[in-house]
Amino acid sequence: MHRLELLKPDGRRLTLYSRQPIDPALTAPSPFAEPLNASAHLRWHPLRGEWVTYAAYRQGRTFLPPPEYNPLAVTRDPAHPTEVPAGTWDVAVFDNRFPSLAEVPAGAAPPPGLIVPTAPAHGHCEVVVFTQDPNASLGALPLGHIELLLQVWGERTRRIGARPGIEYVLPFENRGAEVGVTLHHPHGQIYAYPVVPPVPARMQAVAAEHLRVQGRGVLETLIDKERRDGRRMLYEGPHAVAFVPVCARYPYEVWIAPIAPAESFDQLTGVQRADLARALKTVLLKYDGLWQRPLPYLMAWYQAPTDGQPHPEMHLHAQLYPPYRTKDRLKYLAGTEIGAGFFAMDALPEDKALELQQVKVALP
Amino acid sequence: MHRLELLKPDGRRLTLYSRQPIDPALTAPSPFAEPLNASAHLRWHPLRGEWVTYAAYRQGRTFLPPPEYNPLAVTRDPAHPTEVPAGTWDVAVFDNRFPSLAEVPAGAAPPPGLIVPTAPAHGHCEVVVFTQDPNASLGALPLGHIELLLQVWGERTRRIGARPGIEYVLPFENRGAEVGVTLHHPHGQIYAYPVVPPVPARMQAVAAEHLRVQGRGVLETLIDKERRDGRRMLYEGPHAVAFVPVCARYPYEVWIAPIAPAESFDQLTGVQRADLARALKTVLLKYDGLWQRPLPYLMAWYQAPTDGQPHPEMHLHAQLYPPYRTKDRLKYLAGTEIGAGFFAMDALPEDKALELQQVKVALP
Repeated sequence: MHRLELLKPDGRRLTLYSRQPIDPALTAPSPFAEPLNASAHLRWHPLRGEWVTYAAYRQGRTFLPPPEYNPLAVTRDPAHPTEVPAGTWDVAVFDNRFPSLAEVPAGAAPPPGLIVPTAPAHGHCEVVVFTQDPNASLGALPLGHIELLLQVWGERTRRIGARPGIEYVLPFENRGAEVGVTLHHPHGQIYAYPVVPPVPARMQAVAAEHLRVQGRGVLETLIDKERRDGRRMLYEGPHAVAFVPVCARYPYEVWIAPIAPAESFDQLTGVQRADLARALKTVLLKYDGLWQRPLPYLMAWYQAPTDGQPHPEMHLHAQLYPPYRTKDRLKYLAGTEIGAGFFAMDALPEDKALELQQVKVALP
Repeated sequence: MHRLELLKPDGRRLTLYSRQPIDPALTAPSPFAEPLNASAHLRWHPLRGEWVTYAAYRQGRTFLPPPEYNPLAVTRDPAHPTEVPAGTWDVAVFDNRFPSLAEVPAGAAPPPGLIVPTAPAHGHCEVVVFTQDPNASLGALPLGHIELLLQVWGERTRRIGARPGIEYVLPFENRGAEVGVTLHHPHGQIYAYPVVPPVPARMQAVAAEHLRVQGRGVLETLIDKERRDGRRMLYEGPHAVAFVPVCARYPYEVWIAPIAPAESFDQLTGVQRADLARALKTVLLKYDGLWQRPLPYLMAWYQAPTDGQPHPEMHLHAQLYPPYRTKDRLKYLAGTEIGAGFFAMDALPEDKALELQQVKVALP
C-alpha cells in the first residue's frame, strides 16, 4: 500500500492511498478557501445518559448538487477545485468540511449557560472516497481495490485511534437517497468519537459478559452456529463469512465477519482481509442484483474501542441495513423501533436469505 | 368517561369511549371474517442483548388504501364493514389485526431449530382511533376530547398492564407518510411488551440512578431548569409544560410532561390531565402552524413499567420527533445515529424553539 499525506489550503488533511506508487508532487485541492472554523459541542442527554453533538454550521452543507459539480470527483480545472486531485490513487481520505466532531481549537468552549453538562465535541469526521470513478459502486470495484479499502480502514483506525481522547472509530457507508445521501460518488465516512457510543458500548458490554461466562466470543459462537445451520449463509470462504443473521432487525440485514475473531481491521491477516473483501463484494453484488438496481443501505463496521486496552470480547464485523422490506416498500422505523428500541419484523430472516442466495454472482 | 366493551366477529376486542353515554346496542364490525391466527415469535439478538419480534403475516397488512376504503371510518354499509361502528363515541380502541405481539394461542410455539433463544411473542397491539372524523387531527380535537384520550391511555395502560406477563405499555402515534403511516385517519397505537423494551429500560436505569444519588427525579430536575431558563419553553401551564429539550436529538423535538411527577397516565389528577391536554394541543397546533401544513412526527409516551412495583424514578412524559430538519429537508437517521446511537444535530435547540415559539396558537 502506497500513501501520500497532504494538507489542503484550508488546513484540512488529505491522504491518498494506492496499490501503485503515488506522484509525490501531487497537491491537495479544496473547494473552500477559508480555514475550517469548527465549533461543535456536546450536550448531555440526562434521560438517556448519552451525549448529543451540535454543529450548527452543518446546515449549509452540500446537498444533492447538480451533476456538473461533484466535490468528490478529481479536480480537472484548478479554477474549480474539488476535494481530491487528479493522479494515480485508489482511495482518498480527507477531513470532513462539516464535521459533527472535530479537533477542538485552543480556547474553544461550549456555549455558556446551558442547563446540562456540556463538552467540546472533540473527535474527527473523515470522508473516504472509495474510487475516482463517480459512476462506480463499492461492490463493483475489483477485489484488490476493496482489499486496499479494508487496509485503509485499518490504517485510519490505528492513526486516528492513537490521537489523544479518541475512544472509538467507526467506518461506515450510507448509500442511496433513501438513507439521505447527498453525494452519489462512491464514498463512506469515518467517525472518531471521544467516548464509546451507545450502540458499540452496549454490544461491548454484552460481548464481555458472554466471554466471561461462556469462555468464547459471542459472535464467534454465532458464526459457528450459522455455518452449521447454513440456511441463512450468503458467503462462506476459508476465512470470512456473510449471512442474514437469525436475529435480523431489517429484512435484508447482512453481517460480514472474519471467521476467526480479530479485534479490529488492523489485526486482520492478509488472507483474512482478502477473504473479507470477497465476502463484502459478494454481498454488495447480491444486493444490486436482487432487483437489478442499486440497493441503498447503511453499513457500519464494528471493532474494538481505541483505548489501548486489549478487547478479546470484540470481533470485527459489518452490519448492513437496507431500508427496503420489499421491492416497492420501505421499512420505516417508527413507534416501536424508535420509541421503544424494540424491532418488529414482518419477514423471516430465512426467507430473505433465500432471496439473496438465489441472486447468483460470479467472482474471479 | 363512558365505555362499552364489544367483541368483533373475528374474536378481537373493541372498546368504545365517550364523554356521552354510549348506546349499549352497538355491535362491533370487522372487515375480516375469519378469526385472527397470530403466530409471532421472539428471537434473542445475542450481540445487542435484546428481543426482536417476527410476525410474517404482517406483510399482507393494509397499505395506503384508496380513499374510498378507510378501515378506521365508521361502518356505513354492513356489507362493507370497517373496524368501528357508527354511533355516539369519541375514541375507539381495538386489537390490531396484524399484531407484532399478541396473546399466545394455547400450544403455540416458536419455529423449532433456531440457533438463538426464542419465545412466543406474547403481548398486545392495539389501535386507538382518536376521532370519528377521518379529516381531523389529534391537535385539532377539542380540549375535552384530548383529555378523554389521555384518560383512555390511562385506562388501557391499567387494564393491559394488569394482564399476565405484560411488563411495559407504550402509547404512541406515528403521523404522516414520511414516517411510514399507512392510514391517514387520526389514530395511534398501543404496544404492550412482555419485557421492558431497550429504550425505556435504559431511561429507567438512568432515572433510578439519578434518584438514588440526587434524591430527586431526573425529569423533574430538568423541567425545573428548563422553566427557569425559559428559552426553549413552548407551553407553561399550572400543571404541565412543553419544551424543546436542551438535549434535543431531532430539530423540532418536543417533550410534554406534567410538572409534578406522575408515574403513569393512571396517576394523573384531573387538573394535571386537563393541563396536559392543553400542552399537547398547543404543541400540535404549533407543529401544523410552522409551515402551514400537517407536520409528521413520532410521539411516544413513556411511563412506569407495569410490573406492579412502585417506580418513583419514572415521570410520565411524551417525546415527539418530527422527521424534518428544515421545511424541505428530512433528517435521516444514518451511520452515526443508527450505527453508533450517537446523534448529530445541525440545528441548535434554542433556534428551533424560537421558531416554534413564534407560531401563535389561540386556545379557548
